[in-house]
Amino acid sequence: MNVARPLAQLIGELERLPGVGPKSAQRLAYHVLRMTVEDVQRLSDALCQAKELLKLCEACQNVSAEPLCEICRDARRDPHIICVVSEPRDIAALERVNEFKGHYHVLHGLLSPMDGVGPEQLKMRELIERLRGEIHEVILATNPTLEGDATALYLAKLIKPIGIKVTRLAHGMPVGAELDYADSATLMSALQYRREM
Amino acid sequence: MNVARPLAQLIGELERLPGVGPKSAQRLAYHVLRMTVEDVQRLSDALCQAKELLKLCEACQNVSAEPLCEICRDARRDPHIICVVSEPRDIAALERVNEFKGHYHVLHGLLSPMDGVGPEQLKMRELIERLRGEIHEVILATNPTLEGDATALYLAKLIKPIGIKVTRLAHGMPVGAELDYADSATLMSALQYRREM
Repeated sequence: MNVARPLAQLIGELERLPGVGPKSAQRLAYHVLRMTVEDVQRLSDALCQAKELLKLCEACQNVSAEPLCEICRDARRDPHIICVVSEPRDIAALERVNEFKGHYHVLHGLLSPMDGVGPEQLKMRELIERLRGEIHEVILATNPTLEGDATALYLAKLIKPIGIKVTRLAHGMPVGAELDYADSATLMSALQYRREM
Repeated sequence: MNVARPLAQLIGELERLPGVGPKSAQRLAYHVLRMTVEDVQRLSDALCQAKELLKLCEACQNVSAEPLCEICRDARRDPHIICVVSEPRDIAALERVNEFKGHYHVLHGLLSPMDGVGPEQLKMRELIERLRGEIHEVILATNPTLEGDATALYLAKLIKPIGIKVTRLAHGMPVGAELDYADSATLMSALQYRREM
């Protein structure tokens, strides 16, 4: 059976979103039909407005509605430390911890030669340019994955010669985890980087 | 940290969709920012158009862009058998089987007194009205759940006195399932409704 065309179209568009399979696209589409006209309009507007109004912060490349993002505009933050992350959402994760009070830099990806992502595809040039200012430390907070590690290594080799301290987030056991369930790579890191008490 | 307002708004709207938690709303929102303007526009239009153009079929209450849906307009289908389902998506599931060639009727829900869903909240009146025509059989294809069974029972009591044959989808072991993993209610049904070979 062919479902009605506007419905098929909506299902098709929803299916293109990440993590939305044919089944959930269908479920979402039928949900949209049950929503009020106002709610659908609000969702539709939010999509267009987000795309239209949001740009990248000129300094840190975070998503921002202003030329400079909220963090870069915040005078109380330490401009001498830059924490490098892969994605804008990583900033939100780190901000929730409320520990880091410096600035950020978003690479918008990780080095992945297999997928054709080299240094030019990432916001690395913009990062290096920022290092001309008075930067004391660059924290490499890319994910502890193969690509995250490779990207961190690449950046470290690039930045250390400038004479800036380069650090990396600690690897180890997640707080609250059980040794029994930890994968061996994590356990190995936890052993290698063990601290004296 | 507050994310940029248009982004927060989009995340908020996405979070209201079923099955979309805060985490996936965030992920979807950032994905939207990476989509092309045209793709976002198409998604946004599909939402509004689906809501605007789709109505319920005047006969079977299925979702349709026309006053009568594709199935109700199809002259090759048997108008004497009506298969009653809970949701429009159930029609798609049954049509995939390619076995049933009659008409459908969508209740848009199931009886659930706890949630305040009585017969008036469902498209039951519309179903009873259709039975005035020459209907030979009503197949009750609501889900084999507590509410689906209750709804089927209610309808059977309503329809049988009119003198129309009322049937229900067979309960039993799903094809390809293992006895070992079947729940006892299913096994009990499978035993009760066992067939001679």
